[in-house]
Amino acid sequence: MNVTLHGRTEHFRTVTFDAKGNSVRLIEQRLLPHEFKIVGTKDFRQTARAITDMVVRGAGAIGATAAYGLAQGALAFRGGDLKKFTAHVELVYKTLAEARPTAVDPVNAMNEVRGRMLSGETVAEQQVLTLAAAEEFANEDVRHCKEIGAHGAKLIRNGMKILTHCNAGWLAFVDIGTATAPMYAAQAQEKKFHVFCDETRPRSQGASLTAWELAQQKISHQVIADNAAGHLMQRGEIDLVIVGSDRVLGRAGEVTNKIGTYTKAVLAARHRIPFYVALPCSTIDWKLRRGFEIPIEDRHENEVLGAWGVTKSGKREYIRVANPTSGARNPGFDVTPPELITGIITPAGIYRPKELWKHRFKLGFAA
Amino acid sequence: MNVTLHGRTEHFRTVTFDAKGNSVRLIEQRLLPHEFKIVGTKDFRQTARAITDMVVRGAGAIGATAAYGLAQGALAFRGGDLKKFTAHVELVYKTLAEARPTAVDPVNAMNEVRGRMLSGETVAEQQVLTLAAAEEFANEDVRHCKEIGAHGAKLIRNGMKILTHCNAGWLAFVDIGTATAPMYAAQAQEKKFHVFCDETRPRSQGASLTAWELAQQKISHQVIADNAAGHLMQRGEIDLVIVGSDRVLGRAGEVTNKIGTYTKAVLAARHRIPFYVALPCSTIDWKLRRGFEIPIEDRHENEVLGAWGVTKSGKREYIRVANPTSGARNPGFDVTPPELITGIITPAGIYRPKELWKHRFKLGFAA
Repeated sequence: MNVTLHGRTEHFRTVTFDAKGNSVRLIEQRLLPHEFKIVGTKDFRQTARAITDMVVRGAGAIGATAAYGLAQGALAFRGGDLKKFTAHVELVYKTLAEARPTAVDPVNAMNEVRGRMLSGETVAEQQVLTLAAAEEFANEDVRHCKEIGAHGAKLIRNGMKILTHCNAGWLAFVDIGTATAPMYAAQAQEKKFHVFCDETRPRSQGASLTAWELAQQKISHQVIADNAAGHLMQRGEIDLVIVGSDRVLGRAGEVTNKIGTYTKAVLAARHRIPFYVALPCSTIDWKLRRGFEIPIEDRHENEVLGAWGVTKSGKREYIRVANPTSGARNPGFDVTPPELITGIITPAGIYRPKELWKHRFKLGFAA
Repeated sequence: MNVTLHGRTEHFRTVTFDAKGNSVRLIEQRLLPHEFKIVGTKDFRQTARAITDMVVRGAGAIGATAAYGLAQGALAFRGGDLKKFTAHVELVYKTLAEARPTAVDPVNAMNEVRGRMLSGETVAEQQVLTLAAAEEFANEDVRHCKEIGAHGAKLIRNGMKILTHCNAGWLAFVDIGTATAPMYAAQAQEKKFHVFCDETRPRSQGASLTAWELAQQKISHQVIADNAAGHLMQRGEIDLVIVGSDRVLGRAGEVTNKIGTYTKAVLAARHRIPFYVALPCSTIDWKLRRGFEIPIEDRHENEVLGAWGVTKSGKREYIRVANPTSGARNPGFDVTPPELITGIITPAGIYRPKELWKHRFKLGFAA
């Protein structure tokens, strides 16, 4: 999407590849929203580290990063020995797969790239194919997000107030995003609306990343505390909720997403406010049958006990907010049952959560 | 309650009065949990500012502060002209009443003090009476919190996990607190239980103040993000919710409390978890008929856009968390309807919210 720097507006993707320098180029997301900077990784090990250290985060974005990282590793190979090349690619694959062990997107992305690669016969051919496949993966991510936008924009009417949680924006994908895609599409259709960004404690992705995205796109928005949405719904100030997802169960229609999503769905149901989840097909898990089988990651308590931000003097700091002698409990995700979800916005259309299985062949299901 | 400083345990009240210095003495709550300090205000304007700026916060504590502040203002009057004195007291009253417009306690407290004052015939007599009445108000606050504890402790069984929101602890009253009173009483009865403290963004009173109180009292507890309670309820990890209130409508049974309370009540109702509100009689508003008549204070957006805490080097800092070019919406309170509330724990006993009116004469209703 567009970013305005020093008065100049330019289009950026979250993840790109510099073929000349054999470098994966990433928006350094840990510096946002206070600084916009593109960093390049010099080799696949650095690319893996960028995933681990969350220079880049978000399902689609780390998928594309791993795909490019695999190409980067393959292209760095010197010589024509196919056996040695294959062993080298295996090492690259393993290194990138281990960068974020619980995520499924990097592995799926690399499987696609490696599959395409194998249709080449020489090292040189296979090298070229990895890059073409990685580019195709990134372009498909963008295409899917655009399609989500086209379907989702129909839900947005003039004057609406929309709530979103966490960041399922273009920073979490290669471009456009999922929960934000309907907003960007509706803006292009010249609809006027206002977005409330849940702060999304403990990591505050809503306040930092989503608010930054919407500000760059000049979409009217305000940050709210995670506590405020219930009150705003009570007073009739929220008309629509759109969030993203980390994993949707294609059979049961249950939605895993950032902690707090379930709460917003419960509130929306009580107030009869439509609650939508936007996602690409790669987020659908066709195997797991029930939500309580989804492992819920317990993250470090320091996330809850303090916050990251920038001081008045411009220094990035972690501050301790909580009582110094208290501990915290920090579940990272929650599961929202299908009866609380109005619809799932996918690249193929909008479906009720329980209908995903029926439409599975349109949604990328592979038996 | 007891505070342990440098290994020495001492008993403190949140608000006291220094008659010699004509000064209201307050625990500087904005420094907690990182520093424990008592501050004195030099006149009623400073006392009002301490309420506005949240040096002191919490229903009972600001009630007692306003009561003492009225006495402080009255005592500062020089001369014997009763008419001038009355006008002066009126100004003091107005200044203190405007310090926190959503709260009902300061006004109720000052009405009591002023009522008692009027039985004096001279300026000097009235001055003495204001202080006596303020002291009586503070002592009654403590007595009421003790009674709340006695009733509420019956709800706590061994092994329970209890959720609380914001701080309705002793720091919010003169001593003991309301939502915490049943916990302190249950602890005295040697019951074992665990408390989850909602962080309570944007001001984080749960993470800072409630966690500090419980740690001082050695009650097992953990801080959670406001987003996490829904997930914990889903997984059966919360058995009971107890919160405080800033204003309860005695006729309708509606409860105003810190933003986010309504959300927790909606979640508790969905999961059939008992949801109790603990409060002294002074929190009951017998006049207003409906919740939407309660003015909901919109607070400064910087509360939502950043956080206060202590850096690694021990410095107290405000950090900006949100995107620098984004604004925020910051409603301070919300209203919970009676059908979501299992019971109201009062000094006179536990009542269903709709029964308050029936029991009004036990609950301090004055026609």
